[in-house]
Amino acid sequence: MNEFAPVLDDEAVAVARVLDSDHVADVVEALNHEPRETAIELLCAMPFERLVDIFDQPELEAAPELAEALPRPKASKLLTAMSVDRAADILRELDEPARSELLGALAPPLRTTLLSILGYPEGSAASIMTTEFVSVPSDWTVGRTLDYIRKVERTRETIYAIYIVDQRTQLLLRSTGLRRLITGNPEDSILSVAPDRVPVTVTPLTDRENLARAISKYDLLALPVVDHGRILGIVTVDDIIDTMIEETTEDVHRFGGMEALDEPYMKMGFLAMIQKRAGWLCALFLSEMLTANAMQSYEGELEKAIVLTLFIPLIMSSGGNSGSQATSLVIRALALREIGLGDWWRVALRELPTGLVLGSILGVVGICRITLWQYFGLYDYGPHWELIAATVGAALVGIVTFGSLSGSMLPFALKRIGFDPASASAPFVATLVDVTGLVIYFSVALVILRGTLL
Amino acid sequence: MNEFAPVLDDEAVAVARVLDSDHVADVVEALNHEPRETAIELLCAMPFERLVDIFDQPELEAAPELAEALPRPKASKLLTAMSVDRAADILRELDEPARSELLGALAPPLRTTLLSILGYPEGSAASIMTTEFVSVPSDWTVGRTLDYIRKVERTRETIYAIYIVDQRTQLLLRSTGLRRLITGNPEDSILSVAPDRVPVTVTPLTDRENLARAISKYDLLALPVVDHGRILGIVTVDDIIDTMIEETTEDVHRFGGMEALDEPYMKMGFLAMIQKRAGWLCALFLSEMLTANAMQSYEGELEKAIVLTLFIPLIMSSGGNSGSQATSLVIRALALREIGLGDWWRVALRELPTGLVLGSILGVVGICRITLWQYFGLYDYGPHWELIAATVGAALVGIVTFGSLSGSMLPFALKRIGFDPASASAPFVATLVDVTGLVIYFSVALVILRGTLL
Repeated sequence: MNEFAPVLDDEAVAVARVLDSDHVADVVEALNHEPRETAIELLCAMPFERLVDIFDQPELEAAPELAEALPRPKASKLLTAMSVDRAADILRELDEPARSELLGALAPPLRTTLLSILGYPEGSAASIMTTEFVSVPSDWTVGRTLDYIRKVERTRETIYAIYIVDQRTQLLLRSTGLRRLITGNPEDSILSVAPDRVPVTVTPLTDRENLARAISKYDLLALPVVDHGRILGIVTVDDIIDTMIEETTEDVHRFGGMEALDEPYMKMGFLAMIQKRAGWLCALFLSEMLTANAMQSYEGELEKAIVLTLFIPLIMSSGGNSGSQATSLVIRALALREIGLGDWWRVALRELPTGLVLGSILGVVGICRITLWQYFGLYDYGPHWELIAATVGAALVGIVTFGSLSGSMLPFALKRIGFDPASASAPFVATLVDVTGLVIYFSVALVILRGTLL
Repeated sequence: MNEFAPVLDDEAVAVARVLDSDHVADVVEALNHEPRETAIELLCAMPFERLVDIFDQPELEAAPELAEALPRPKASKLLTAMSVDRAADILRELDEPARSELLGALAPPLRTTLLSILGYPEGSAASIMTTEFVSVPSDWTVGRTLDYIRKVERTRETIYAIYIVDQRTQLLLRSTGLRRLITGNPEDSILSVAPDRVPVTVTPLTDRENLARAISKYDLLALPVVDHGRILGIVTVDDIIDTMIEETTEDVHRFGGMEALDEPYMKMGFLAMIQKRAGWLCALFLSEMLTANAMQSYEGELEKAIVLTLFIPLIMSSGGNSGSQATSLVIRALALREIGLGDWWRVALRELPTGLVLGSILGVVGICRITLWQYFGLYDYGPHWELIAATVGAALVGIVTFGSLSGSMLPFALKRIGFDPASASAPFVATLVDVTGLVIYFSVALVILRGTLL
């Protein structure tokens, strides 16, 4: 053993080992676990090709900050060498003046391309597209196209999708796959190996959800982004998978009743997280205050029949739970396009009997619970306990039905007024149902208990 | 106009138009909207190649039923011609005796392959893999591989990923892409155009979530399924996208507090849907009954200070909402592997101050609400209204903190005992927090109001 070998601590050894070999995705994962300063040091010491590979991975956290920390000439060389869509991602999140400085140092054609991508709204097809795709004029042969692909292969994000444009107008005519080319006859026209139909395309403003739907439906490896018949760029399947994962995260966060975080949970600043959570929590709290108003207006009844209060939490939560079920079903069916906006009445016609049946089931369970407790002497609900049980049972039928109906209609309403139906979070539905639940409960009580307790 | 032309109604015209041209995915969509009998008629009338294309689409609803309705010889010809993974999907969902009859009519090698795929549990990598991939011995040249690919192209699901196996042991050595092949020198060894590292592989039992993670992390077009070093099949990116969409649906349903539906909402039978929803709803209802017990044990306090009941719904829902936020954050961070099981204490250390701050914010809002109502004479909370306000404020701090902490710990606990953390639905968390919320509220009230109201 060489006793002059530098003494490396365990972690450094582990990092060095991973950086040295292994898939670039694993290197990125290792870098993500390092403190910012160490990551920058490691990046600076890397061969340039490796650096480009690493920055091409969307999984690299804090890529804009890391790029900014590199020496400026190295940073602009990096932006030039990386794939255009990732370079745009990085520039999009850079603050001024770093963004303008870096853009200024790039070659004019690349700068123009990047600026045009940056001009599109975040999440749109054009904002995540790459301009590094293969397109050939329609008068080329299969052989000439293959030769061309061999030449440009290194600078294209994918060469598996090939777009054929009119040689004069540059309008997109057809698309084909490399597999058709390599089995084709080199002398034939490129059009002869393309399916005889207009390619599936998206517009620059198509949103992520529709991109995912199109690529999943048509089993494509890339989707061309087309404006006025001309192809601007392509969105590749790996970018779509990444945006699908991001979209799911946002939906889960929203469904939990908060704003979506855009950073990993453990890396997010404390204050930023409070901000994202406090807003919705306060909004829900303020709406839920209506329950206090509702309770106040039934104060007289409450004083006369305090036994009614015992079941308030139980009854309210049942409404919220059934509403949350209905909401999640409808949100997902809308997202998958199983149903459209116009189907609201079909859904209502389904949720009405569903709610009645579910409510009756809970109602029977509730009545049994009260009867059992009374019967075995576990609690004394007073001389009118049968009426109390009937009140709880009937209220449950009403509340669960109302919960299912309103929970299922809320996503439609949100979509109708232009919001994402996924904002109909479980807490939102529960809050909506809570106030009405109280009103239903006390109204039922007034009908059943009038003349006895009330 | 020819007056003898057959009179077609509008819908039939539309269907015929779509079936005639257009992408197979659009044909499938049109078929899904037809009644079963019409769909079968249309399918029987189609050219066989088109039929195979249609059944190769996983989006075709009720594919097993449709296949079963075809004449048997046509059905077995269809299963032979379609991709192996889709044929396995269809057979998996067919009931006996149709399944055995169809399997029996297939050629023995295909039957063996299908039976081995069918033997793996649903959702595992092996159950969705296809055996139609390209693998070549490591002593072949680039040119020979290309010739081979040209020959087998039509029978392979993808030819873009090429797997290189040891010519003697058949063990998987390397993987490469078609793009490397077409730019390579035809005389060179196939190994010369493969990256010099062990390919990313999965085992036959890898679950869908990990498949999606691997394909997204390494930006692959296909993942090889390997058992004891030998490649059994591949899972392609389009299948992974489909399973990701399915997985999201299941998560949303579970997050809404119910069992995941495995059929589209509008097509699911009424009773089946009641079953999927009633189970969880009843379980939640039974747990929530503990709130009635908790309320009963504070009956004395309730009678003395009925004003306390006014804020019960408000306080309980705040606990549920903060818990639901924390749960959704942790579920997603666990799914994305941002945190692991061992990080529970880190999360707890983050949620504790977060809960305290959020609770304090809500507490202040709550105190303001009571003060304003009292001040402007909107409601009279009695002579001790300041103490009531203090009780509500302090209880909110306690309950929101408890909600955030328990909501964030629940997914860890579920994962620890082997459940899917995504089962920690918002209703589940709310129920958990409700009972404790009541106990916290009344305990705080006993401390603050002792000697005055209580």
